[in-house]
Amino acid sequence: MVDLNHNHTATNGVSTNGALTMTLEDVHERGSDRQIALNLVGISDIQYPLIVVDRDSQTQQTIAKFSLGVDLPKEDKGAHMSRFVEILSQFQGKVNLAEMPRMLDLIRTRLDCDRANIQVAFPYFLERSAPVSGATALMDYECSYSADMDNFGSTAVMSVRVPVASLCPCSKAISDYGAHNQRGYVTIEVKAVQPGPEIWLADLIEIAEKSASAPVYPILKRPDERYVTMQAYENPAFVEDIVREAAWSLTQDSRVLWCRVNVVNHESIHNHNVFGSVEWHRFGSEG
Amino acid sequence: MVDLNHNHTATNGVSTNGALTMTLEDVHERGSDRQIALNLVGISDIQYPLIVVDRDSQTQQTIAKFSLGVDLPKEDKGAHMSRFVEILSQFQGKVNLAEMPRMLDLIRTRLDCDRANIQVAFPYFLERSAPVSGATALMDYECSYSADMDNFGSTAVMSVRVPVASLCPCSKAISDYGAHNQRGYVTIEVKAVQPGPEIWLADLIEIAEKSASAPVYPILKRPDERYVTMQAYENPAFVEDIVREAAWSLTQDSRVLWCRVNVVNHESIHNHNVFGSVEWHRFGSEG
Amino acid sequence: MVDLNHNHTATNGVSTNGALTMTLEDVHERGSDRQIALNLVGISDIQYPLIVVDRDSQTQQTIAKFSLGVDLPKEDKGAHMSRFVEILSQFQGKVNLAEMPRMLDLIRTRLDCDRANIQVAFPYFLERSAPVSGATALMDYECSYSADMDNFGSTAVMSVRVPVASLCPCSKAISDYGAHNQRGYVTIEVKAVQPGPEIWLADLIEIAEKSASAPVYPILKRPDERYVTMQAYENPAFVEDIVREAAWSLTQDSRVLWCRVNVVNHESIHNHNVFGSVEWHRFGSEG
Amino acid sequence: MVDLNHNHTATNGVSTNGALTMTLEDVHERGSDRQIALNLVGISDIQYPLIVVDRDSQTQQTIAKFSLGVDLPKEDKGAHMSRFVEILSQFQGKVNLAEMPRMLDLIRTRLDCDRANIQVAFPYFLERSAPVSGATALMDYECSYSADMDNFGSTAVMSVRVPVASLCPCSKAISDYGAHNQRGYVTIEVKAVQPGPEIWLADLIEIAEKSASAPVYPILKRPDERYVTMQAYENPAFVEDIVREAAWSLTQDSRVLWCRVNVVNHESIHNHNVFGSVEWHRFGSEG
Repeated sequence: MVDLNHNHTATNGVSTNGALTMTLEDVHERGSDRQIALNLVGISDIQYPLIVVDRDSQTQQTIAKFSLGVDLPKEDKGAHMSRFVEILSQFQGKVNLAEMPRMLDLIRTRLDCDRANIQVAFPYFLERSAPVSGATALMDYECSYSADMDNFGSTAVMSVRVPVASLCPCSKAISDYGAHNQRGYVTIEVKAVQPGPEIWLADLIEIAEKSASAPVYPILKRPDERYVTMQAYENPAFVEDIVREAAWSLTQDSRVLWCRVNVVNHESIHNHNVFGSVEWHRFGSEG
Repeated sequence: MVDLNHNHTATNGVSTNGALTMTLEDVHERGSDRQIALNLVGISDIQYPLIVVDRDSQTQQTIAKFSLGVDLPKEDKGAHMSRFVEILSQFQGKVNLAEMPRMLDLIRTRLDCDRANIQVAFPYFLERSAPVSGATALMDYECSYSADMDNFGSTAVMSVRVPVASLCPCSKAISDYGAHNQRGYVTIEVKAVQPGPEIWLADLIEIAEKSASAPVYPILKRPDERYVTMQAYENPAFVEDIVREAAWSLTQDSRVLWCRVNVVNHESIHNHNVFGSVEWHRFGSEG
Repeated sequence: MVDLNHNHTATNGVSTNGALTMTLEDVHERGSDRQIALNLVGISDIQYPLIVVDRDSQTQQTIAKFSLGVDLPKEDKGAHMSRFVEILSQFQGKVNLAEMPRMLDLIRTRLDCDRANIQVAFPYFLERSAPVSGATALMDYECSYSADMDNFGSTAVMSVRVPVASLCPCSKAISDYGAHNQRGYVTIEVKAVQPGPEIWLADLIEIAEKSASAPVYPILKRPDERYVTMQAYENPAFVEDIVREAAWSLTQDSRVLWCRVNVVNHESIHNHNVFGSVEWHRFGSEG
Repeated sequence: MVDLNHNHTATNGVSTNGALTMTLEDVHERGSDRQIALNLVGISDIQYPLIVVDRDSQTQQTIAKFSLGVDLPKEDKGAHMSRFVEILSQFQGKVNLAEMPRMLDLIRTRLDCDRANIQVAFPYFLERSAPVSGATALMDYECSYSADMDNFGSTAVMSVRVPVASLCPCSKAISDYGAHNQRGYVTIEVKAVQPGPEIWLADLIEIAEKSASAPVYPILKRPDERYVTMQAYENPAFVEDIVREAAWSLTQDSRVLWCRVNVVNHESIHNHNVFGSVEWHRFGSEG
């Protein structure tokens, strides 16, 4: 194990206050020995405030977890990671989901690379009204946005994770009374036909909720609880039924180019979950 | 919304649209067989937007996880859980941390109980400047607020979890060069002397950062990286040192009635962590 | 392995193969400036195989997460953290839950301290039979053991987290058919009367399962699913009811000195949970 | 909302003890309205003991999280989920990783499907010796195995997640002394050339550890700590370097058909992580 020389380091005798006149080597620009190009390098698990534009043109502020990355040619030793944070920072705490394509451009320019990738995950809130009493409160949905751009074009995937109630058709059919039901989570990922009308998070949330036995709510008074209890009992659905119903709705929506649906039910009769998933692509369209 | 009568079970044959004229039993008001009073019952893991007032009188909006609870006398079968969400909702998405004492009052009134308890956890952002270049970006800190009120008074605990860099004094002392260092997390919980001046989240964050080998930053350019590398090397600190330094600073702050400090270092030489903790109470003061 | 002398810092110019003749300072034995005694310092999040003895004298091997700690007098700079791992290691991968009191002793001797603390969390498996078909499979329960020893004695807390099904009495009472139900988790913590007969994990699991609307199972065939669906419908229980029923059973068990019961239901009609908790101590007994 | 008829349910008036003579409809065999084939349906998040065979022909018992699934033709309403647990159960708590291909076969037969999929994640332990003192203890690595089989063949991916130490070359080069370092995690996924010699988990763990600045250890005495501190300082590596070094080693191993390497460093100077990843396939071979 031979020690590295230190003479490619800062040579000016400067104090630790780190005067900016000093010349510090940019080690990231050294060559790489292994000559292997990397698919993606970047920063992850960085939290930042995010502004999301709603279907009704309102905005809401939320908190997002970002992952930002670029490809790395085989000649380059490393990416300039601090530039990712500079880009987040230059929006002054007003990072807007609608600006992600612009952020991809910025990343490509500032990091001088072919490919840029953004992944953002955040809770998103909608005001929901109870079905009988009309009582309202906010409900949270975990959403994400993932976008990739290179010299040949760009793709973007939007996703929502929607809590729902599912009631087991088998349990209902074979029991004299009752039926086991539980909270489940419908995850819908979509790519939109481009160019074309926008798909909103609220659109996907509605599709997910309609596909299950019943929606779940932030607040239910007694008449509401009666209503949703009976609604779920009248609409039994296996995890497979919910996947199919959501997928079918997405295929009927001409804005959708590609989708993947995954449903997980937290079975109330077991300590494990059941899941189902399907992926679909509209033929004859281009993304 | 009109509350319903409390006679036993729904008697009218009504459609599932749940007409409000129907009489639905309030099962929560049935007696309890076991005659055991419960310390706390409520709702948990509910996400809601939250407004936090900063030390400099600015506000920031964040997303919080709430747990809201009350005690339950031995005669009562259950608490009216939906009222907790009604209380969150009536602030119209403008739940403010400064209003938590008022929310405790509301809970006690609306749920007709002796004790009310609120726990809120949320990311909180501060703009931080790199030590040499002055480059700025936002950094997140996990914070929480926990408050309890009954007929005899109330207590509130505020906490921050602050990422820091720690550099091992042993590793530095026994090695010819280098020293292992790593990310650690300083968690400070405090109760304030009442009545008295406010303790701010930013105050606790500063105490935590000063207690470690170096702060961590959202963005560092090369001169900054040089600076903090050498700063950490010059300030080696065991997990025990960081606990003691933070605790000592808190004892010197006359606003602090009680504190608990916990530090965890994600050792860069091991796959496990090291931790240290201490609890302290100012004698001669009353909370 | 021979322990090293404790003179100040490495003085001999030795190669990095770290010859054992070298004198390396034991920095942990430097004094502490702040003169603050710490409640607990140690290692955490270390995974290790663990052997658990069952009620029927069989053993099972599982994987546990350990936290091991000691107090630190105000004169000492740091604890010798590596000794905690040495203690785990000297059991040769056969760490046995029944040996935790002996491990506390070992920690106190090897780290030369007054107080020793152990926390262990692990999945524990029981073979469960479906109620009608008798089909069997293993089911996992998250368990933990926490023990503390100082010059004045020792205490040990055992806990289990048991998944159950809960069916809402309100939903059943007010609906023409059906009732919302969901998976819940009953957490029971106990201290045993000492000296006295042992309390087994399986005992606590049984108490938890009997307190809910129905147990959950690893495997259910159709006749079983019919059975548990109707069993749950016939035994509606609020989260409060489950807490009380479990607590009541524990008070009737003369082996129990102290207990805390916490129940969380993952409501199938909401995106948040409901919880309840109670703590109880047997008077006239000593731990 | 029209209620479903109940005349396809159990018609025999039986008590809730669920006599096995009763005829219960198998609702899973009803047709599906939506006529959409699903890619995968099954059970997930089920914990079960697992036996893993080591490179040296020893076995170790661990605890695994399983996900088991099958495809679902468009004509079938649902999969028989309980059969997945029956398959796990019939191994009598002796589920062996080496039997996963046999388990895929079993799933295909018992669930009468074309495709079967297994995903297993588990901690795996190796005894590691400190580099100077030779002190030994067990260290855990998160591993997984994922296999898929249909009428055209099968594929299997094995993965390890290995904690390592990384020391920043830039920080070392630009600072007069010290260099920031941190814990990182190297994740390697591989497919093996088939037929061909086995690739062992321990092989991949060694590749990961050699690619970083230094391995991490379960136990280090002072001479060991001196050794690894200086070892890391002499082998600075960006996240990109570690990815490339691991990928390069894998390309040199003729058993490897395909690999993906992902490295994440928990930067000790930031509150976010940096990552890098690359995917590689050996041309001219068939899996």
